[in-house]
Amino acid sequence: MLLRLSTLFCRTLREDPADAEVASHKLLVRAGYIRRAAPGIYTWLPLGLRVLGKVEQVVREEMVAAGAQEVHFPALLPREPYEATGRWAEYGPNLFRLQDRRDNDYLLAPTHEEMFTLLVKDLCSSYKDLPLVLFQIQTKYRDEARPRAGLIRGREFVMKDAYSFDIDDEGLARAYDDQRAAYQRIFDRLGLEYVVVSAMSGAMGGSRSEEFLTPTPIGEDTYVRSPGGYAANAEAVTTPVPPSLDWADLPAAHVEPTPDAPTIEALVGLVNDRYPRADRPWTAADTLKNVVVALTRPTGEREVVVVGLPGDREVDMKRLEAAVAPAEVEVASDADFAAHPELVRGYIGPRVLGPNAPDPDTAVRYLLDPRVVPGTRWITGADEVGKHVLDLVAGRDFTGSGTIEAAEVRAGDPAPDGSGPLELARGIEIGHIFQLGRKYAQALGLTVLDANGKSQVVTMGSYGIGVTRVLAALAEAHHDDKGLAWPAGVAPAHVHLVATGKDAAVFDTAEHLAADWSARGIEVLYDDRPKVSPGVKFADAELLGVPLVVVVGKGLASGVVEVRPRVGEAVQVPLAEVADVVATHVEALLSPDW
Amino acid sequence: MLLRLSTLFCRTLREDPADAEVASHKLLVRAGYIRRAAPGIYTWLPLGLRVLGKVEQVVREEMVAAGAQEVHFPALLPREPYEATGRWAEYGPNLFRLQDRRDNDYLLAPTHEEMFTLLVKDLCSSYKDLPLVLFQIQTKYRDEARPRAGLIRGREFVMKDAYSFDIDDEGLARAYDDQRAAYQRIFDRLGLEYVVVSAMSGAMGGSRSEEFLTPTPIGEDTYVRSPGGYAANAEAVTTPVPPSLDWADLPAAHVEPTPDAPTIEALVGLVNDRYPRADRPWTAADTLKNVVVALTRPTGEREVVVVGLPGDREVDMKRLEAAVAPAEVEVASDADFAAHPELVRGYIGPRVLGPNAPDPDTAVRYLLDPRVVPGTRWITGADEVGKHVLDLVAGRDFTGSGTIEAAEVRAGDPAPDGSGPLELARGIEIGHIFQLGRKYAQALGLTVLDANGKSQVVTMGSYGIGVTRVLAALAEAHHDDKGLAWPAGVAPAHVHLVATGKDAAVFDTAEHLAADWSARGIEVLYDDRPKVSPGVKFADAELLGVPLVVVVGKGLASGVVEVRPRVGEAVQVPLAEVADVVATHVEALLSPDW
Repeated sequence: MLLRLSTLFCRTLREDPADAEVASHKLLVRAGYIRRAAPGIYTWLPLGLRVLGKVEQVVREEMVAAGAQEVHFPALLPREPYEATGRWAEYGPNLFRLQDRRDNDYLLAPTHEEMFTLLVKDLCSSYKDLPLVLFQIQTKYRDEARPRAGLIRGREFVMKDAYSFDIDDEGLARAYDDQRAAYQRIFDRLGLEYVVVSAMSGAMGGSRSEEFLTPTPIGEDTYVRSPGGYAANAEAVTTPVPPSLDWADLPAAHVEPTPDAPTIEALVGLVNDRYPRADRPWTAADTLKNVVVALTRPTGEREVVVVGLPGDREVDMKRLEAAVAPAEVEVASDADFAAHPELVRGYIGPRVLGPNAPDPDTAVRYLLDPRVVPGTRWITGADEVGKHVLDLVAGRDFTGSGTIEAAEVRAGDPAPDGSGPLELARGIEIGHIFQLGRKYAQALGLTVLDANGKSQVVTMGSYGIGVTRVLAALAEAHHDDKGLAWPAGVAPAHVHLVATGKDAAVFDTAEHLAADWSARGIEVLYDDRPKVSPGVKFADAELLGVPLVVVVGKGLASGVVEVRPRVGEAVQVPLAEVADVVATHVEALLSPDW
Repeated sequence: MLLRLSTLFCRTLREDPADAEVASHKLLVRAGYIRRAAPGIYTWLPLGLRVLGKVEQVVREEMVAAGAQEVHFPALLPREPYEATGRWAEYGPNLFRLQDRRDNDYLLAPTHEEMFTLLVKDLCSSYKDLPLVLFQIQTKYRDEARPRAGLIRGREFVMKDAYSFDIDDEGLARAYDDQRAAYQRIFDRLGLEYVVVSAMSGAMGGSRSEEFLTPTPIGEDTYVRSPGGYAANAEAVTTPVPPSLDWADLPAAHVEPTPDAPTIEALVGLVNDRYPRADRPWTAADTLKNVVVALTRPTGEREVVVVGLPGDREVDMKRLEAAVAPAEVEVASDADFAAHPELVRGYIGPRVLGPNAPDPDTAVRYLLDPRVVPGTRWITGADEVGKHVLDLVAGRDFTGSGTIEAAEVRAGDPAPDGSGPLELARGIEIGHIFQLGRKYAQALGLTVLDANGKSQVVTMGSYGIGVTRVLAALAEAHHDDKGLAWPAGVAPAHVHLVATGKDAAVFDTAEHLAADWSARGIEVLYDDRPKVSPGVKFADAELLGVPLVVVVGKGLASGVVEVRPRVGEAVQVPLAEVADVVATHVEALLSPDW
């Protein structure tokens, strides 16, 4: 392959695009790989499309090696199957919905569980048809509230989605493990660092679920790790429930005036001053903070809910959202408070909430952090401006309507499996595997006859890789302040050959090298532009990020050309040897040990 | 490549699907290549996807060989660019429209002229950036009123669309010729017979335009050819305008009662009987038939129009539609007639129409067939039940509001270029090339500086191939009553290897052959199903349509296997020679002379 920059449809930009926040977005646009067509929707230019094709090919090869068979579903789908599983509504505003000329409802598919299930139902009837793993690499749609970071959170994007079909749980476990191993090979081959963390399955339903995250400070996902090997998405972390405490010796609850204590810090100072406890000072962790939020269900129904948690922690909205999905969450509005006069802002206490309220059936639901176990002793609002109640004891003086994982996870928190204190990091979700189980098969009637002729509901797994997002993650992981620096396996070319100056001999030699290498199967991007300065050409080479740059220029007079790895030191190589040097370099760059 | 039928996700069907009318649709479904997901929307199963990939690859290679660069646009696009060119409205109900969560208007693109124009405007500024040809192979959407014939007229389909950009008309002509030649190579390589015919450009605008049609009786398009080499889509045929005639000696028009003449035939009989002309008998071609239709413009505006044409011809609705595009046409409704009491059904004459009406400004427009030249003498309605007017002379007694090409073209009609009588045939449109000219560049402001530093509007060409439709056309052209019979270049495999019986030696030998051939680069579909009868296996092989079938069975005991070309005679081959025979066969099948 030989591409010439003189005719290549590619214009590099020196300035970052105004709407770009992260390096991959800035560089992919500046280097002429992608262009924005609409918010979260991108056009692929020739170099970008080459990289995308290579990423897709790695994914495809490993899927096929893992025994998966490739199919391809439409993006435009009828409402009915998604209605049958409840997802037409559950997806809420994230789904692009439309009607055809006969007013039939359609959607642009965000995932294809329903369609795969129905297709297998159509074609398979016996346990002998299983196990089966199908996949596609296909364009998906999601009407994100906040498309951001270029390809990382787009509205039209390419995904590999695979689905496994088994007659029993052991089969599903095997299929899951096979896909997990394939994912590891894919990301290893792509040169993309990853961690595998436990995950919630969100709107998908199902049980065992892991995410593949690539660590990066610009990641949207927070994950945790413990010294003992626990790893999870922050949304999936469960709080170890402390043992209940004996309340026999605790004082009775008492309401006290707490003037001029608008913050938890001020409140703690005030109570330590006026109502000190005997054993130790009160801390923010002894206050019970009651946060009012509003849930909106896919049906549109809105419910005001109060979350009670220790005052030293904030509500983590992503954890809260994961806990209440498919409902969406927002902070309660003035209208919500107006509708609930019992909620006294700044002084909300358990006594007006959930089972503690005068009329529990109509009271606002009260969801407690798992740390609020029976016997814990709290300072909290007294439902009256300027007053708090002290020594309010869980289990004795109040209970919740239920518990919820909504508090932020902090570095140092204990891992739920006892494997030590957690550390936090950020990452981008690049893959997600999970055991759907029988949810979709049940909803859509996918059964097969087992060896005894008995009808069995099939159990399924679902396995996704965000292909366009992986490309962005690669750019994020492999760049410097001068530009992109692709791993050779996904680079748009193997060698970026630059001819500098005006000397015809230089261009003749470069032309000859380009033709020679390309005939040997080396992919060459040749900067043959006649009237462009060496400085511009070198800057473009650094921006485009091909792993090996070869410069034919002034040195040619003394018989040498320069070989510059994109990351590494330049060396002068005699012209006669450059073909071998380049071939060796390219081979090394493409080797799996890279 | 080695695919095993025991695990391949493919189920063949013995019965035609209920909704299928044409062979390609029936066979692609029955052979397990595609499945219907919604009207005009299909899922690709593994074998179908393999064929589709091969068709795409031929198209891609020839585009690249012709100097086109591959890009990829989104399918989901904002309204604005399509508004700027007027196509948001012009496409009418054929466009899938939707809104995102912020109520912004989007569409699913049926073609991408606007986006390509804007992208080139974004990246190019000088004549030095031209000529430029870009293409994509991409999923497109069209909300067809009547999706039919499986992949032939779908609502979600794959197209290759290419666009050329030039500074001047000569450049555009060159680009057009290059694409035309590339199309010829593509269809030659695919093994698909084609004719190139002149075409109207429909909603696209522009000037020179040709269609590539593959001849087939099930085609939706009618085209014509003359002995002298004229070829055109029926919609594009222009009627040679006969010379005007002298009316000096013609009698004056006279209204006569014409009772019991409900048909043109009856009317002609009656007038020959009662009002014979001196020179020759009246014929149906002497009657002037006035057909009332209603146009609906993209804006929704409805207009009643009368088309006047010789009574021996029918209105061809497709020609009429092409002539009035982007308006849509239907037969006038009772409501239309009620709104126009001057139109007396069965007796409509020119005197109440267009410029002949008492108030021409408010009269129904009257569009005449080009044959109705001044001096022609007609029998037509007298705007009164039971009466016709005779000897009504065009130019003397009436005129039209304009002319229209709406009459059917008939075998024997003269070619417009004088190259002889036309013959008619049917075909499927598989490609369309046309010179858009400056329409889109003008509307969207695509200009570049020429060599003198002067701003010039770029001129464009547009070149489409319906990739999924081509696949269906291949199936249509290459099948028999037993199933598909793919050209080797697009077949899902080169060899279909069948092991029959229960003898372990047969399966061992077949297994060995499959592995050996696949290691040599021959694509093998191996029917290794253990408990399936030879009859079922042979029927499946014929249905699936791989070009070469090899049967290992009873003959193995005497050292022979059978080699059966899908089309041709079976031969018995000694086991020791079969590898060479198969290799030779496959090479011959894949050779360009095929």
